[in-house]
This record gives sequence, C-alpha cells and structure tokens, in this order.
Amino acid sequence: MTLLSQHACHGGVQRFYQHESTEIGLPMRFSVYLPPQAMAGETCPAIIYLAGLTCTEETFMIKAGAQAIAACEGIILITPDTSPRNAKIPGDSDAWDFGVAAGFYLDATQAPWNKHYRMHSYIVAELLPMLLASLPMDKSRVGIMGHSMGGHGALVLALRHPELFSSVSAFAPIAAPSQCPWGQKAFTGYLGTDESAWADYDATALMQKQSQPPFPKGILIDQGFADKFLVEQLHPEAFKTACTSVQQPLTLRYHEGYDHGYYFINTFIEDHLLHHKQQLSS
Amino acid sequence: MTLLSQHACHGGVQRFYQHESTEIGLPMRFSVYLPPQAMAGETCPAIIYLAGLTCTEETFMIKAGAQAIAACEGIILITPDTSPRNAKIPGDSDAWDFGVAAGFYLDATQAPWNKHYRMHSYIVAELLPMLLASLPMDKSRVGIMGHSMGGHGALVLALRHPELFSSVSAFAPIAAPSQCPWGQKAFTGYLGTDESAWADYDATALMQKQSQPPFPKGILIDQGFADKFLVEQLHPEAFKTACTSVQQPLTLRYHEGYDHGYYFINTFIEDHLLHHKQQLSS
Repeated sequence: MTLLSQHACHGGVQRFYQHESTEIGLPMRFSVYLPPQAMAGETCPAIIYLAGLTCTEETFMIKAGAQAIAACEGIILITPDTSPRNAKIPGDSDAWDFGVAAGFYLDATQAPWNKHYRMHSYIVAELLPMLLASLPMDKSRVGIMGHSMGGHGALVLALRHPELFSSVSAFAPIAAPSQCPWGQKAFTGYLGTDESAWADYDATALMQKQSQPPFPKGILIDQGFADKFLVEQLHPEAFKTACTSVQQPLTLRYHEGYDHGYYFINTFIEDHLLHHKQQLSS
Repeated sequence: MTLLSQHACHGGVQRFYQHESTEIGLPMRFSVYLPPQAMAGETCPAIIYLAGLTCTEETFMIKAGAQAIAACEGIILITPDTSPRNAKIPGDSDAWDFGVAAGFYLDATQAPWNKHYRMHSYIVAELLPMLLASLPMDKSRVGIMGHSMGGHGALVLALRHPELFSSVSAFAPIAAPSQCPWGQKAFTGYLGTDESAWADYDATALMQKQSQPPFPKGILIDQGFADKFLVEQLHPEAFKTACTSVQQPLTLRYHEGYDHGYYFINTFIEDHLLHHKQQLSS
C-alpha cells in the first residue's frame, strides 16, 4: 500500500493509496477516509462504496459530502477504483459504459478481458482482507453500498458474500442488469452470450434464488424520479418484486425531482450512513 | 440568464446559468443554490463565493458540501466563474496562475487583458444587481466569501463595497497579493508595473487605509498549517496586522494538518455559513 496523498478532513484523514494487485495483475488505486475515532485507535465500522460508470476512487470522496457524517458517526469509508487502468486492451477506452471505468464489479470470463477485469475477486479476496489487516476495522462490521453500476456491484457482492457484508444499500442501482442495455452490453462482453452465466451478477436473479431473507434487517435503496436512466436501465421494481418473493425487507424510496447525479447522493448520504451504522452496531 | 442545468439538492435546487455579460463582453457562467426556503418564496440571505485558481463556477458547488448547511439555514449560494472564457487572447491558457481561470477578480487596465478581464465590475455592477432583481434575496443581506485567489477577491470586494456586502470571510486567502509571486505576476500583467495601481486590489493595503473598522462585527479567516502555499503566497499575518492597526475585529484561525484544498474547505464551511448567517440576520 503506497500512500499517494492524504488530506486532513473533518478531524480525520482522507487518504489515497495505490498497490500492486495480484487479482488484477496491475496497480490499483483506492481511497480511505479514517474518521477521528479511527485515528485515535478505536475500531470502527466500515463501509465500502462502489462508484458508477466513468468514476474513480476519488469521485465519492470529493462529491458525496460523506466525511462530515462519517466523522460524527465514527465510520471508515473505502472506495476502490471502478476498473483496472492501463490494461492496454484494444478498444478498452472507446466507450464510457464498457472497459475502463466500467468494470461492473465482476470477474470477466471472456478474452481479452478475463486477464485483468476481475473486480469482484479483487474487492472480496484482496482489497477487503488487506484493509481488515491494516486499518482499525473488524470483519463483523463491514457494510457495502454503491451508485448506479456501483449499486449493482454492492447488491451483488452483498448477496454473494453475506459472510463479509453485514449491511447493504444503494443509490439508483442497476438492479436487474440482465434486463437493461448497460448490463446486457457489459455481460455479453465480459461473460459471453450464454445468459445462464449472467445470473451470478444480477441482483434481481440472485435475490429470487434466496431461500430466506439474506439481510433481515433490511436493504435501503434511494431512487430519483427525475433520473433519466430510471426507465431503461435501472429497474428497481424488478428487484423489489424479487425481495417481496423471498420476504426480504426493502426500503425503496422514490424522490420527486432528483436525478442520477451526486447532488442526489449528497442529499441522502446521511440516511445511508446511518442505515449502515445502525445495522453494523446491533 | 439561460438555465443550463438544474439538480434537486437537499430540498432545494442547484442551478447553473449562462448569460451574455456586457461587462465582460462574452458569455459568462455562474451557479446558484436555492435552499428550500427560497423555493417556497421566502426572501433569504445570500452569499457570493469566489473560487480559486483553476476553478470554475462548479467547483464550490461540487466539493464544499455547502448545500446541506445552506438548506438548513435558508441561505442562497452564488458562485461566478473565475475569469472570462474564450476571450482568445494569445497565451491566455499558457499558465494556471494567469489568464483563463485566473482573473483575480479585478478590472485589468493593460492591453490586451483590459477588454474582457473585468471580473470586479462584472460581479458588483452586473451579476449581483441582476441576481438581486431575479432571485428571492435582498440587498441588505448579501455576504461574500472565497478561497485562495477567491479569498483575495472576497476581501477586496468587501472592503471596496461595504455598501453591497454586509459580511465577509475567507479560506486561505491571498491576503497581501502585492507581496507574493502570484499577486505580483497577476497585477503586473493586468494592472501594469506601476505598483501604486495595485493597492486598490490588495486587501492588506485596503485595510491599512481604513479610518474605522469596515466590518465591526468581524471578519473570519481559516488557514491550514499544512497549506504548501502559506509561507510564500498567502501572508495572512500581514492582513492581521493591518486589521489590528485599524481595530478591525478578525478571527484568524490556524488548523494543524489542513492543506489548501477542498477537504479543508469542506471541514470548515459550516462555520463560515453560520458566520455569514449571523451577521446577515442581525
């Protein structure tokens, strides 16, 4: 872990790191906010935030206004980058919804993507264990959240690894990626045309398969009604139906006038951090 | 005023506008945050925020986390761009500390800058009157604040126009620009080599000339000790000495570990908004 920069922030410290990832096979960057409580040596609950298309490990830390609340509540915030960088795969920067900054938090099976595009294993098998070993956090109090592509990632990682993540929430997630253009493009490219391979990375499909509610304390999702991607890309109602079918408690809140961007996230970030804090404390 | 975009935010609305500026002779952009109270028709106090070198009308609204507090307190936030754009003056983009995004909130007297680089008159004689006429604000409750180059701008505009601005504060301002490389470069380029012309745009020189305290309720300045520009460029102590000489109350706070960036501003923005709110209410 090489510390690239750090900035005092709300009594704690905002850090940006780089490390050589064995899962990705390339250097990866991530950001950590340590609240004052963690700086004083206290073991704190932690939340991994997964960002959306075109974003980096910086976006959430710059735009969401989360540190003010994390400092009050004593929460560690962690954000990985959204894809490998400098994999030098031809065409990997041609589109904003596939390739660089669009890793979709999955392990690609299709060449040439399968060599480096392993964000799923990177987060659960490398980044999280490394941070549990080096930051004042403990494995029983880790939550996960995300926005858009990162909301998809948060729901999928939580549903596949409930032993790692004790709370989950999302802003405007791609909630049924197999059913929308963004997800179909990404899954076809990374996972191939056999749609049976897609279900392991589709939050709605994963929820439908549950035999009991995986997060009995409840999942929180916020969604803006003025989000231009809502109808075509996000499908929160499909996820809600899947939750209902397995009696998974879900708070799905719609907000008149709010769009897909960080002014929306900034508005409701406090509710999300408190949602995690409560579930990670009890 | 052409509305370029708007985003619901903390119950109010974040807006970005463009208009044809007669002072600048070019289109100019600015941003406005209207809190819920203003959206409901209530006349609110307003604060103009002036951003620093390399910034735009977006920077503060994205990074400072001010809207959460402005929404609670019922404060309108306004940020102009930091210079003319597309003036097509040869060399205007060659340096990050002169020309584009480095207008220093002054009226240039030297060709070729004097045609468009008129940010001082733009703000006081065009933007502010236009917004007073179109937003639910009143001229007796307008404050001004800024960061770095914008802290310089805020102090200078407040000292030259106390009839327009009833409260003033700054983050890490260039407090004595005649005495630092950034200011000397800008003033030489925009105002010429005759240093007697510089005093009208130097907060420390302006304060020294006062016959009585111009802001008897006090000025607030926050400064990080880990700010890499502090020693060479900022000179808050010179401004403090000038304040003392005219009995101007100044709260100059130094913060261990904090640097020059927006994580610093985000940490202390609440104190600044409350400083203005209190002075604009009484």
